[in-house]
Amino acid sequence: MLAPRTTLGICLIGAGFMGRAHSAAYRHAMAMPSVSPGIRLQTIVGLNAEQRDTVRDLFGWHAAASDWRAAVRQPDIDIVDVATPTNLHAEIAIAAAESGKHVLCEKPLAMMSAETERMLAAVRKAKVRHAVAFNYRFVPALALARQLIEEGRLGMIRHFRARYLQDWLVDPLAPMTWRLDKETAGSGVHGDLNAHLIDLAHFLVGPIDTVVGDSMTFVRERHNAKSGLTGSVTVDDATSFLARFRGGAMGVFEASRMATGSKNRNQLEIEGDRGAIGFDLERLNELQFYSTDDPPHVRGFRTILVTEPDHPHLADWWPPGHMLGWEHAHAALIGAFLNDIETGSSVAPTFEDGVACQRVLEAVELSTFTRQWVSAGCS
Amino acid sequence: MLAPRTTLGICLIGAGFMGRAHSAAYRHAMAMPSVSPGIRLQTIVGLNAEQRDTVRDLFGWHAAASDWRAAVRQPDIDIVDVATPTNLHAEIAIAAAESGKHVLCEKPLAMMSAETERMLAAVRKAKVRHAVAFNYRFVPALALARQLIEEGRLGMIRHFRARYLQDWLVDPLAPMTWRLDKETAGSGVHGDLNAHLIDLAHFLVGPIDTVVGDSMTFVRERHNAKSGLTGSVTVDDATSFLARFRGGAMGVFEASRMATGSKNRNQLEIEGDRGAIGFDLERLNELQFYSTDDPPHVRGFRTILVTEPDHPHLADWWPPGHMLGWEHAHAALIGAFLNDIETGSSVAPTFEDGVACQRVLEAVELSTFTRQWVSAGCS
Amino acid sequence: MLAPRTTLGICLIGAGFMGRAHSAAYRHAMAMPSVSPGIRLQTIVGLNAEQRDTVRDLFGWHAAASDWRAAVRQPDIDIVDVATPTNLHAEIAIAAAESGKHVLCEKPLAMMSAETERMLAAVRKAKVRHAVAFNYRFVPALALARQLIEEGRLGMIRHFRARYLQDWLVDPLAPMTWRLDKETAGSGVHGDLNAHLIDLAHFLVGPIDTVVGDSMTFVRERHNAKSGLTGSVTVDDATSFLARFRGGAMGVFEASRMATGSKNRNQLEIEGDRGAIGFDLERLNELQFYSTDDPPHVRGFRTILVTEPDHPHLADWWPPGHMLGWEHAHAALIGAFLNDIETGSSVAPTFEDGVACQRVLEAVELSTFTRQWVSAGCS
Amino acid sequence: MLAPRTTLGICLIGAGFMGRAHSAAYRHAMAMPSVSPGIRLQTIVGLNAEQRDTVRDLFGWHAAASDWRAAVRQPDIDIVDVATPTNLHAEIAIAAAESGKHVLCEKPLAMMSAETERMLAAVRKAKVRHAVAFNYRFVPALALARQLIEEGRLGMIRHFRARYLQDWLVDPLAPMTWRLDKETAGSGVHGDLNAHLIDLAHFLVGPIDTVVGDSMTFVRERHNAKSGLTGSVTVDDATSFLARFRGGAMGVFEASRMATGSKNRNQLEIEGDRGAIGFDLERLNELQFYSTDDPPHVRGFRTILVTEPDHPHLADWWPPGHMLGWEHAHAALIGAFLNDIETGSSVAPTFEDGVACQRVLEAVELSTFTRQWVSAGCS
Repeated sequence: MLAPRTTLGICLIGAGFMGRAHSAAYRHAMAMPSVSPGIRLQTIVGLNAEQRDTVRDLFGWHAAASDWRAAVRQPDIDIVDVATPTNLHAEIAIAAAESGKHVLCEKPLAMMSAETERMLAAVRKAKVRHAVAFNYRFVPALALARQLIEEGRLGMIRHFRARYLQDWLVDPLAPMTWRLDKETAGSGVHGDLNAHLIDLAHFLVGPIDTVVGDSMTFVRERHNAKSGLTGSVTVDDATSFLARFRGGAMGVFEASRMATGSKNRNQLEIEGDRGAIGFDLERLNELQFYSTDDPPHVRGFRTILVTEPDHPHLADWWPPGHMLGWEHAHAALIGAFLNDIETGSSVAPTFEDGVACQRVLEAVELSTFTRQWVSAGCS
Repeated sequence: MLAPRTTLGICLIGAGFMGRAHSAAYRHAMAMPSVSPGIRLQTIVGLNAEQRDTVRDLFGWHAAASDWRAAVRQPDIDIVDVATPTNLHAEIAIAAAESGKHVLCEKPLAMMSAETERMLAAVRKAKVRHAVAFNYRFVPALALARQLIEEGRLGMIRHFRARYLQDWLVDPLAPMTWRLDKETAGSGVHGDLNAHLIDLAHFLVGPIDTVVGDSMTFVRERHNAKSGLTGSVTVDDATSFLARFRGGAMGVFEASRMATGSKNRNQLEIEGDRGAIGFDLERLNELQFYSTDDPPHVRGFRTILVTEPDHPHLADWWPPGHMLGWEHAHAALIGAFLNDIETGSSVAPTFEDGVACQRVLEAVELSTFTRQWVSAGCS
Repeated sequence: MLAPRTTLGICLIGAGFMGRAHSAAYRHAMAMPSVSPGIRLQTIVGLNAEQRDTVRDLFGWHAAASDWRAAVRQPDIDIVDVATPTNLHAEIAIAAAESGKHVLCEKPLAMMSAETERMLAAVRKAKVRHAVAFNYRFVPALALARQLIEEGRLGMIRHFRARYLQDWLVDPLAPMTWRLDKETAGSGVHGDLNAHLIDLAHFLVGPIDTVVGDSMTFVRERHNAKSGLTGSVTVDDATSFLARFRGGAMGVFEASRMATGSKNRNQLEIEGDRGAIGFDLERLNELQFYSTDDPPHVRGFRTILVTEPDHPHLADWWPPGHMLGWEHAHAALIGAFLNDIETGSSVAPTFEDGVACQRVLEAVELSTFTRQWVSAGCS
Repeated sequence: MLAPRTTLGICLIGAGFMGRAHSAAYRHAMAMPSVSPGIRLQTIVGLNAEQRDTVRDLFGWHAAASDWRAAVRQPDIDIVDVATPTNLHAEIAIAAAESGKHVLCEKPLAMMSAETERMLAAVRKAKVRHAVAFNYRFVPALALARQLIEEGRLGMIRHFRARYLQDWLVDPLAPMTWRLDKETAGSGVHGDLNAHLIDLAHFLVGPIDTVVGDSMTFVRERHNAKSGLTGSVTVDDATSFLARFRGGAMGVFEASRMATGSKNRNQLEIEGDRGAIGFDLERLNELQFYSTDDPPHVRGFRTILVTEPDHPHLADWWPPGHMLGWEHAHAALIGAFLNDIETGSSVAPTFEDGVACQRVLEAVELSTFTRQWVSAGCS
């Protein structure tokens, strides 16, 4: 097990927040007993040389480059990891696939459904493995949630309720970034955070059928301190929507970057006719679970500390009660993708999941214009 | 202060759960220093003689009756308290007003908007005082929430998010009651629990402008063990909706009687550009409060134990940290209404508030049919 | 059941905080279906006429008096309720017993063990019923804790850990009261709050065997705004102690009136070899419960909302999720004592419990002087 | 900053749980912007070859060895990290110092005070840098606690209350290990977990003056499945103690491995005359803080999510709300020690801190025999 059969060369495109997060995850993956192949941090690609070289030096990438087109074609590369702004995802991922590389792509998979479908077609045609960085599936508490649902402990699911709340745009002096520009980001909090909620809904409950949503931009102009210019915010600060799941459950979703006091509050609650669960990313080691199987006088939501050896993804880490952090979910996702490539397993979420998520994102956006319910068109 | 200027005779119509709750509240009100007039528990009216006489004996009502028409006209009655199924509210309240009695009515005020407007016209014409039992306004933590908002501590409000979750219908053997029959209840959880949320939204944020909602009945037939018959559930088990407030905030609402594990989870969160609050009725003595006025390194949601002498409604009760219960809010509402009658103050919510709530309830119901946004038509 | 067999006349001595609390409890007891006898609020006794008459008027006592010796002998009195400063407990309780009255006494039962034993001898000799107001035994969550222990759900108990924290003396301007004077109070926080913890330990775990403690007075002089004089604080602000239980468990106790931020934080945790519980009076409707009987992957402390119909003491109150407050435990204790008198049951804690508590209190005080472990001398 | 001035060679002795934890911490330290020197994972030493080689391969140590005496003398070693059972600490640390190596040692520093003093003398004589792995000082929330205390936000401290609870010995089938044998471990939970609490007390409040404690071993024999033999548990399962701090505060401490339901519950509360804090390692990203500077009606314990850029130790990690885990504190401690060596700073806790902790540990053990208060003899 400790003698890796393969060593996979990685090319990471993007050296911003996600570039650092993925770099840290690869380093974790090297030391995780469950990860079968070895990896080589070959090339990091970024346009901002200072930022890119800092990430290279900190995490030990062998090479740095600025031209992703050349980088993804190199023979020492087996996996291309796309951690750029959203508008570049499709082009890079398709080029990588056409070069025969396996592709890991950040979420949302692309700017719109049509693009995501072209990406899916490309990886299928190239017969390469593909994954979307829906990292929250790999938070142990959420993986346990899925397990409990599969064990039937929730019964038939009736309610899914989720909100992903941040507050970094409450400050009117928060600067413009590519994330606030529709040209580069596609959408605002919707594609950023609702994408996570939608994928978790698909992961835990199943396909979303129809939706109706609402969207607001509260601060419409922001200043860019570096460029000295004032820019228009062309994306949503907050988007909420109602949903019906194909399986009959009702859904309520909300994402905001204007939720004062919430830093990274990805909360969800699911109720079925036999039990219920609750989760809050700000307490990511905990899962709330309620079961009608308990004797009536001792029923209650139990706080499961998801750090036991027999909990999902825990075998790679520490003894019970030794908390994990946010980055460990990225590591587990990347570890799963590496194993999928090496062993043929199918654990990491794929471009199919990215396509399904994008259809719901797009249906919500359409409904905010038409002011009526819209079919999410899941096939 | 302890020598009451007046003694008001009460006639309570209804001896079910709410009849008991109001009876207990009147008994509290007798011993609350802040309540100016004295009261006399004159007549309790109910059709089920055994149930009614039990409440009479437990709480010390002088008389019991089964004919509300006669009872509300008696000269020893000053206040008629309507705690019946919803379909009787309008007729009783109007008759009481026409007899010159002050009227306190349970929520929702009536079956539909037109009715609530007739009720309002009747009390205005009769120049009697009127109140709707939106008791949660009188939970000290929620009264404090209103105070903090009025003090400007939340700034401009952007998000209102509320859910009122119960689980008493999860059990498929839960029996039919008048609450599950559209003829008597008007609606299900929507008029029962969303009515509370809508009133709190109006109380804390202001008028709701437009809405879009969704509604489900998960269990469509239930058995009535007493009658031996099976009945159709003709009301909603769960109703959720999105809203826009006139002041520009976004709203997300959800009510359910199918939320496994939630007993009486009336939760709300409000975010403004300077602060935020959170509340959960299952921890009704606590208010969560976040302020951007705090130094950055010590910001966080603080759990205010709302039991201090200078907190709203606390002067009538115990020292700090001596918890209050659910019934104390009813007592405070009834105390406020008694004072309003005696002193001319305007503290208790009125039929105007009941009308405003009904319009939103109705707009949501309409939107669940039309599948598009509907104006709540607040005047 | 609703036609009481007896009507018991009450004489309440004391019209301070506890006088008000007991008055409210008697009024609750009148409306509790589980309480068998009727009661008559006959006489309230207090030296401060204004305070006493206010309580009389608010709660409907028939008569007010200032001479307790005369009052307790009246033939229309069946029960004497002692809610005075501690130094008067013994004399009043003994006189009441000698007049053939049942006696309910506030905690701590008296100033020292010898006194409590004389009180016990007096009630035994007079063959009257007796109770100590250890009201927290009647918080539904703590009654459920006892039930779970009796059901064996905790197994063999190894740890008892409790703290009762308040902060009303943190303010250096907090005034002198009889509670801060050793002559009237006997001790400070020790007899006030540790008395509760010790009784709960006896109730839930069993007799305490040996102890070692520590005690501090942080603010040694306080001003009396009314008298204009400065007084010496002659009692403890904080007392902590370790204990061994006869059954083999270890105990850790702490009480303080200097615990900034804690209002009424009576917290306890108990661990056995099969399970564990936790409780916090500031969330008095909740019990934490952990069971090793649960499947390993779903173990966790569950928050039981102790408001279900089949939970202890709940039948007298509201539907699930409708919170109770602090005063309801007093009402349940008084209801239990009334039933004990009427029906011969033995539910309320007795003077025997008061004696046992006093022995531990005294052993701790002794150990704070000798600086070594002391036997609590439970017989 | 990214061009390290030095590259320090590490020799890690021990490949068990702590060997893995330190290995992971070194790898983190390589990628932390705040860490000035570079490091080389030179040699890992362990007697169990399989376990040692696994750690070597997972974390990328250049060499593995079984003879620590030879290993610590190698010229390519700059730092010796002692992560062995406690009985080997002194000998290894002294040998390393005599070879001129800097020394990092796990806690407790040694088996008894006299040993720790010899260790301190050795590192002083050799003029090498030294540190004890009191990792919890580097949990951001606890570093913030220290900062708030230094800012005066708690005022004069009156209460320190801490418990460190685990439950891995509740299972009677839990096997014998070196941690349960007095010969190798020195003590049980006392030296393991109370050592952490004592150091945090010293870090946050100041020197402990006198103590009285109690200690129990609940399960006295355990089986060793591998060897097939039954062994005697010769150390404590639980130890609690009371303390007086030199500054006048009262302390209550408890550690147990028998606290059913607690996995790694290192909880502490500190109250001063201006404010209070609370912490729970099972929610390690949160600090509770209460301030009497707040307006009275909005006072409450606030939950500070200690993940902001201006919080201690956060600059090396992620944006707000992206949780850290247990291992990040080890990484920060090791990073601090590396910087101390490189830059001459004094941030990491030293052998002086280890000596002070040991004196208190020993005083508590003595008091459990003498059954009376003992001076901790801090100089």
